[in-house]
Amino acid sequence: MTNEADNLRLRRTKSVTRAEEITKQEAKIRKSQPDKPCHRPRDSLFTWSSGFTNFTGLINWAFLLLTMGGVRLLLENLIKYGILVDPEQWLIVLTGSQEGGVEHPSLILVLYSIVPVAISLLIEKGLAEEIIEARIGMATHVANICIMIMLPMIIIYVKSTAFSLFGASTVCFIYSVLFLKMWSYVQVNLWCRNARNATTKPHLRRQSVSMSDLDNGKAGNNDTQEEEHNIVSYPDNLNVKDMLFFIFAPTLCYELNFPRTDRIRKRFLLKRLLEVVILMQLVMCLFQQWIIPSVKNSLIPFSKMDVVKATERLLKLSIPNHLVWLTFFYLMFHSFFNLMGEIMHFADRNFYSDWWNSNNIDTFWRSWNLPVHRWAVRHLYVPLVEQGFSKKFASLTVFFISAFFHEYLVSVPLRTFKIWAFMGMMGQIPLSMFCRWVETKYGSRWGNIIVWASLILGQPLCIMMYYHDYVITHFGEALLENYAAV
Amino acid sequence: MTNEADNLRLRRTKSVTRAEEITKQEAKIRKSQPDKPCHRPRDSLFTWSSGFTNFTGLINWAFLLLTMGGVRLLLENLIKYGILVDPEQWLIVLTGSQEGGVEHPSLILVLYSIVPVAISLLIEKGLAEEIIEARIGMATHVANICIMIMLPMIIIYVKSTAFSLFGASTVCFIYSVLFLKMWSYVQVNLWCRNARNATTKPHLRRQSVSMSDLDNGKAGNNDTQEEEHNIVSYPDNLNVKDMLFFIFAPTLCYELNFPRTDRIRKRFLLKRLLEVVILMQLVMCLFQQWIIPSVKNSLIPFSKMDVVKATERLLKLSIPNHLVWLTFFYLMFHSFFNLMGEIMHFADRNFYSDWWNSNNIDTFWRSWNLPVHRWAVRHLYVPLVEQGFSKKFASLTVFFISAFFHEYLVSVPLRTFKIWAFMGMMGQIPLSMFCRWVETKYGSRWGNIIVWASLILGQPLCIMMYYHDYVITHFGEALLENYAAV
Repeated sequence: MTNEADNLRLRRTKSVTRAEEITKQEAKIRKSQPDKPCHRPRDSLFTWSSGFTNFTGLINWAFLLLTMGGVRLLLENLIKYGILVDPEQWLIVLTGSQEGGVEHPSLILVLYSIVPVAISLLIEKGLAEEIIEARIGMATHVANICIMIMLPMIIIYVKSTAFSLFGASTVCFIYSVLFLKMWSYVQVNLWCRNARNATTKPHLRRQSVSMSDLDNGKAGNNDTQEEEHNIVSYPDNLNVKDMLFFIFAPTLCYELNFPRTDRIRKRFLLKRLLEVVILMQLVMCLFQQWIIPSVKNSLIPFSKMDVVKATERLLKLSIPNHLVWLTFFYLMFHSFFNLMGEIMHFADRNFYSDWWNSNNIDTFWRSWNLPVHRWAVRHLYVPLVEQGFSKKFASLTVFFISAFFHEYLVSVPLRTFKIWAFMGMMGQIPLSMFCRWVETKYGSRWGNIIVWASLILGQPLCIMMYYHDYVITHFGEALLENYAAV
Repeated sequence: MTNEADNLRLRRTKSVTRAEEITKQEAKIRKSQPDKPCHRPRDSLFTWSSGFTNFTGLINWAFLLLTMGGVRLLLENLIKYGILVDPEQWLIVLTGSQEGGVEHPSLILVLYSIVPVAISLLIEKGLAEEIIEARIGMATHVANICIMIMLPMIIIYVKSTAFSLFGASTVCFIYSVLFLKMWSYVQVNLWCRNARNATTKPHLRRQSVSMSDLDNGKAGNNDTQEEEHNIVSYPDNLNVKDMLFFIFAPTLCYELNFPRTDRIRKRFLLKRLLEVVILMQLVMCLFQQWIIPSVKNSLIPFSKMDVVKATERLLKLSIPNHLVWLTFFYLMFHSFFNLMGEIMHFADRNFYSDWWNSNNIDTFWRSWNLPVHRWAVRHLYVPLVEQGFSKKFASLTVFFISAFFHEYLVSVPLRTFKIWAFMGMMGQIPLSMFCRWVETKYGSRWGNIIVWASLILGQPLCIMMYYHDYVITHFGEALLENYAAV
């Protein structure tokens, strides 16, 4: 019996030779012994006692079935709706004006964003030169970035008809990014000023030699050093060139001396550029062809609270939505950020961690978007903890600010101030507890599955809710009934 | 740079600690050094130079998406068709009579199968006792089993209206199995007789002591040995009890002394019995609810040769069909055969090998159905090679016989003598060449994918062709046009 088990184990190492073995054995036996038994006591592979665990083929099977299912859904969509992709509409959408509109408010708002950035730089300049008093300077900074983040909200609300959804989204996105960047800029400069004031006050330009310089034990004469190593110390960084570099660098955390690359790799740049162009087309095609009809079709079941149909619609919507999200993730965090990094000679390309393996929703939030995560830790969590707040409070604050920006990025362009995105973000807290419970009870694999399920199902659920409310707010119940009649 | 790479490798071993690392680093740094750089030169994970390969989370992702897709298709089906499952019809189908019929021809044919088996036993008895001459005996055997395999064909053709599809399929299946079993029975007994005649002729009962006995070097007095070890030697095996055991044992290869188990494991038996009952219900539900509507819906695109629609239909049909096939495989080869084996104290449960890992269609055919494979090697391939035929010829013959039985099992119940199943089987030969080419060119993973693709897509294609021809043969083109109008 043990011999048999050994035999099985041996056979398992060289997969699928068992059947060939039979052929050879049989041929040998038949020659010498006519009625030699061809059966031996053996277990079936699916029986636990067989100890067989090699199911690698099933992974190929799963990915093949997924691909086939995807192709079928695509074909079904094409048969049902024909080709809905219309590049002409993209132009309208991209320039940010509604059909027939002559104004380009999105474009104007994007260009206007240079103003609050310039104000920030000017205030910093004033503070460094001690023209502006510290307290007044800080108050002006806060007012400046708060106005900046409120501006799109107001303009979009007032001139609502002139904005396309895409245009308004882009404006909100750019203003959010600038808000975070300016926050970082102001805070880092404040740290530098404090450090300068804490040490020898008269030698304005010596004490803030970059720390990496200190690490290497080279805190020598900085005037020549600066030229040699291109290391910038505090007040020298306050110039337009440095500001513009920070604005376009793919990071939200300001630093006086960013790590730089020596050269632009042309092949790498070209690949990323191609990816950006192709994937943007792909996302837009998927949107026009797949998501819009799916969302439209699910309006009725959702507003009628028909659970079975709504679930079916939700599952149907979840596939293209997830596909778009994955493509968007790659497009943004790999292609676009690497493209910007390569152009800007920016060396730190750590834009995302391996969130796809995360066994807990916390780990996912910490690893999928490293620029924001790094910003939150550096400029919100750590300062709060240093101020004496508890770690729990600091974490909650980070979550709260994150929830606010999620809501901001969705509600403002849609002009429906519902709280689904906010609730979705705040819902991550109980979800994280549930994840931890599943992980400890059923193992890390199930934790990972919960994370994926929340990603795949959570987003389309929010989309459905927003679309439903959007239609009701802007077109009223009448249209819904009209829809139902058709 | 190497330090960086080491760092990355280290980080990879403990997955997803990178983001947590940032938090800790940042907290430590901020305390001591206000403007310590938070960026380091690093590659993105998707860049080749990062050397990152841990994508285990994507396996969970794939299986989750598959499950969700399956649930959605099920819901869609329920919404579209309501509940089609009708257990009343199962009874009609299982008893084998068409609706309203009073005859049970399937049942009668199954019961009649005892007659050719009895004839086989009687002829063997006569041959062993040398009442019947060897040549005449062999001729009668051949005639007997050939008539046996022809019988369902004729009866089903003549009394076509009295058979349900399921009844006719069962009859054909049972007769095929009996054909293979009888072939084995006759051949093994022939080998034993030859062995007896080759050695000492007068001592009729000594020379054919079982070979396992010889192996152990115990070729002593057989009369007492037989009682001790229950080892049966040649002419003693020719009795009704032995024949019945062989008929019900889950194997096609006859042996004088099958390996036996000591006891029936009650828990194991109960589990297998439950599996058989539940999975049979599942297969029938899937058939009524999912496959039948899918097949009906794809008739028009197929007969109109509308490639896009037909492909979509084919892909849609392939999912439930594959599910049914997988369930059927488990039901038959694991649950049912193990159930029979447990009841019959039959110890060799090696009914299937790990075909799901096979990188080549050849390996698949050698490993998915071991009873038939073992039979083909022992009773067709090896004897042919011993007769002096080439191995290639022997392989082709095995394929040919296999193709014949596939065609037999499909065409006879459907009463449409098309050659799609036969062609499907013969098509395995070029497919095997293609597989080998893919395997050597792109690696074993792609070989495995081709095997799966041929399984998932090949079967529904054959089903579509048969259904199409079945409808046209039995109901004519008129119905098809009628269908199209609706």
